[in-house]
Amino acid sequence: MKKSEKKSDNKQAIFDISKEENFPDWYTEICKVAELADIRYGVKGFTPFLPWSVMSMELMFDFLKDVLHKKGHLPMIFPTVIPESNLTKEAEHVDGFTPQVFWIKDYGEDGQLEEKLALRPTSETALYPMYSLWIRSWRDLPLKRYQRASIFRSEVKSTRPFLRGREFLWIESHNVFATHEEAKAQVMEDLETTKEVVTDIYGVPVMVFQRTQWDKFPGGLNTYAADTLMPDGKVIQLPSTHDLGDNFARAFDIQYLDENNETRYAFQTCYGPAISRIYGAMISVHGDDKGLRLPYAIAPYQVVIVPIFKAKNEAEVIAYAKKIESNLQKADVRVHLDDRDTTPGWKYNYWEMKGVPIRVHVGPREVKEEKIVLFRRDLMKREPVPLKSLVKEVKKLGLDIDKTLLTEAESKFEGLIVDADSIGKIIDALDHGKIARIEFCSTNMDGYDCAGQIEERTSGEIRGTRIDIEETPESVCVICGKPAKEIVYIARSY
Amino acid sequence: MKKSEKKSDNKQAIFDISKEENFPDWYTEICKVAELADIRYGVKGFTPFLPWSVMSMELMFDFLKDVLHKKGHLPMIFPTVIPESNLTKEAEHVDGFTPQVFWIKDYGEDGQLEEKLALRPTSETALYPMYSLWIRSWRDLPLKRYQRASIFRSEVKSTRPFLRGREFLWIESHNVFATHEEAKAQVMEDLETTKEVVTDIYGVPVMVFQRTQWDKFPGGLNTYAADTLMPDGKVIQLPSTHDLGDNFARAFDIQYLDENNETRYAFQTCYGPAISRIYGAMISVHGDDKGLRLPYAIAPYQVVIVPIFKAKNEAEVIAYAKKIESNLQKADVRVHLDDRDTTPGWKYNYWEMKGVPIRVHVGPREVKEEKIVLFRRDLMKREPVPLKSLVKEVKKLGLDIDKTLLTEAESKFEGLIVDADSIGKIIDALDHGKIARIEFCSTNMDGYDCAGQIEERTSGEIRGTRIDIEETPESVCVICGKPAKEIVYIARSY
Repeated sequence: MKKSEKKSDNKQAIFDISKEENFPDWYTEICKVAELADIRYGVKGFTPFLPWSVMSMELMFDFLKDVLHKKGHLPMIFPTVIPESNLTKEAEHVDGFTPQVFWIKDYGEDGQLEEKLALRPTSETALYPMYSLWIRSWRDLPLKRYQRASIFRSEVKSTRPFLRGREFLWIESHNVFATHEEAKAQVMEDLETTKEVVTDIYGVPVMVFQRTQWDKFPGGLNTYAADTLMPDGKVIQLPSTHDLGDNFARAFDIQYLDENNETRYAFQTCYGPAISRIYGAMISVHGDDKGLRLPYAIAPYQVVIVPIFKAKNEAEVIAYAKKIESNLQKADVRVHLDDRDTTPGWKYNYWEMKGVPIRVHVGPREVKEEKIVLFRRDLMKREPVPLKSLVKEVKKLGLDIDKTLLTEAESKFEGLIVDADSIGKIIDALDHGKIARIEFCSTNMDGYDCAGQIEERTSGEIRGTRIDIEETPESVCVICGKPAKEIVYIARSY
Repeated sequence: MKKSEKKSDNKQAIFDISKEENFPDWYTEICKVAELADIRYGVKGFTPFLPWSVMSMELMFDFLKDVLHKKGHLPMIFPTVIPESNLTKEAEHVDGFTPQVFWIKDYGEDGQLEEKLALRPTSETALYPMYSLWIRSWRDLPLKRYQRASIFRSEVKSTRPFLRGREFLWIESHNVFATHEEAKAQVMEDLETTKEVVTDIYGVPVMVFQRTQWDKFPGGLNTYAADTLMPDGKVIQLPSTHDLGDNFARAFDIQYLDENNETRYAFQTCYGPAISRIYGAMISVHGDDKGLRLPYAIAPYQVVIVPIFKAKNEAEVIAYAKKIESNLQKADVRVHLDDRDTTPGWKYNYWEMKGVPIRVHVGPREVKEEKIVLFRRDLMKREPVPLKSLVKEVKKLGLDIDKTLLTEAESKFEGLIVDADSIGKIIDALDHGKIARIEFCSTNMDGYDCAGQIEERTSGEIRGTRIDIEETPESVCVICGKPAKEIVYIARSY
């Protein structure tokens, strides 16, 4: 029995699915065997997240919170429930979110609430009535607050662990300013934060677009969103940030007395990095056919030590391994000594599948020669290193792994954008996993019908206009033939 | 206008309410003026927590998570909702919690869920069906997992920020073992964790009781809980830990194959430190008539720097203050430089009310003599210190403040317990803010009626038997006169 159990474990540890050829299966399977999430909870779209994903997501939250904190945003924790009357105060917002809301009307055996409560689908309508009470004068501005929260939306599309669920984990930052200029500057700061955290720390490169008017945040003026590229050639939206103008301030009566004692409406922004979704994108971008490849910065274990020994030298190898563990712990490296009673080969496969960035191999020879073997998961390469430079080499290698993963991910963006001036060319581009760049009539509501035709005929979606470069249209809209006002990008998406 | 605003701010900064004489007002007012929570959210029992409390609670969570992690518990994140059919699997559990549950049946405009969902009132019934899938053999045990979560209970009693609400914040640890002995050892480990974290770090002393059979966790075998003493002489339950025996394992089919290949039910424990409630108790225990007194370990700002200057020496004082700020930051001290345009006196009052443990005063004299003045909030004392020993002195003082706060809190426990052998003596003890120790017939269900009489006649509640000392009854039950089997403690409680 024990033997056969071991055998089946052995099988499990060898992961081998082509990510590029069969991404949906790769994703489903890695979530299962790496024990990231368990889809058997029994309620559609609600998925328990397991230690191996949670430990990384906690680190991801911490990095993001640190950056927000350094930029002057302070944490709050608001209730999970929002009274219906709050939700209905901003007309576009209620239209956008009501179809997504879970409602609570009852409690206990037969208790009825006076007013029905929404599980928050986003927190504008929870926070802004309080903001209205807190903000009195220009001295109270800017107000920069955020919360970490679970968000609930009764998605109709098919759900997937991390990428799309009915409950997901995010940070939402909600900020209030005296002027629209300051609010716009906050939007730019948010995009910077996305780059600093999502790209520079999690290793996920993004393209940033200003969304069209029909694809913006309900109730806001403009939405700016970061997309990344998934292995199947589709894009997925990562953090978006919204210039709310003074729309919500008017709906929720957020006014302040300016320095001349005049009453004015405030301007607002909100920014919502969904950490669970970014986690799903992150593992998709970095993983390979052998399993996960986690960035050093956010791996639950940055280093796993695998001792290699026979009975006669077990004691000295284990002692040596423990010394290494202790040295790395003292240097604040997240290290794990795998002393399970299985073969080194099994452990290699297991930790490769789990995506641990660095493995330390130690056997009798390493003990004798006072060295170690460092194995890097990203390139599947090993090299011997003297024991005395262990900590330095591990930290150096950690940085190099993260740089390598990011560079590799960024290389997928090369040659990704293809100019197209017909429906056929758009379809060809998308079929080859590319993004089509086209001239387009308008990203205001005027262009809505043309966008609908594109979506219907190509299964592609307009992601918006670039904000990092200036692009001037010179021709006509691919669909209606009217003079083009914008250059837009089309991709298939999650 | 500006002037009058300042004046009203000034008023706000001076807090002066006798905590001992008027604790309910003190508590309500400090939550408001220190900006800990805002009770104006508009849904009974749901209260936004503001940055000053959230920053401390985040630190409290981090300390607790570190200790759990060191003891081998790993984090998970489960859905907030639980299907009704899960909740009904353990009969006592469903009876205990169903009256407290908020239910979700609807979504969107007219969507109906196939099965109604509970907002988790606690997570046994969410986790254990999954545990049943995960646990196969003795090799999978022990399984030690925890999650940080929001918990929802439609409390009937009056609600208060942090202390009692319909949504609160906790960590719940759920553990599975092969034997009952290991489960019992986990219960003892949990009580140790409470002492290490709640007492040694948050500075809140506790008494630990084994609860009576009618006051235990619904569905469990035995409950052990830590109580602390509030300023009004009532006790409040802080973390409790539950020996579930194999009750839940039988209800949720959590079985394992032992080393002899026999199928056995597992044994379980759960442990639930409610951080938001502990926060409420912590500020109550440490606060004084001038406001909060926060322990150095969990204060959002450990040090606030107040520069004192006239126009002619502003530049040099501010430069000096910034240098101090930078030195403390480098030493990982949470420091804040208060450079607002108000008087030093106003700032002193403000930060005393906010409970910042250490203040640094710097003026022209300090600049000239290369020193600083360190003010400690706990004892309201100041002393000059040379600049060069700043970091060392701050850290030393921080430790001393935390020790002083704990010692002071522990001193309230002295002479607290009064022996009583009649209803009258119990009432007298409770009326003097004491805890009555009595001989009692039985903490099994046999004693339920006697306990009811005690509660009715004294407004006191049996908190249970001591587990840290052995106590042998020698007389008869105060109520029924039958031979006493236990020594129990009676207190008024939250």
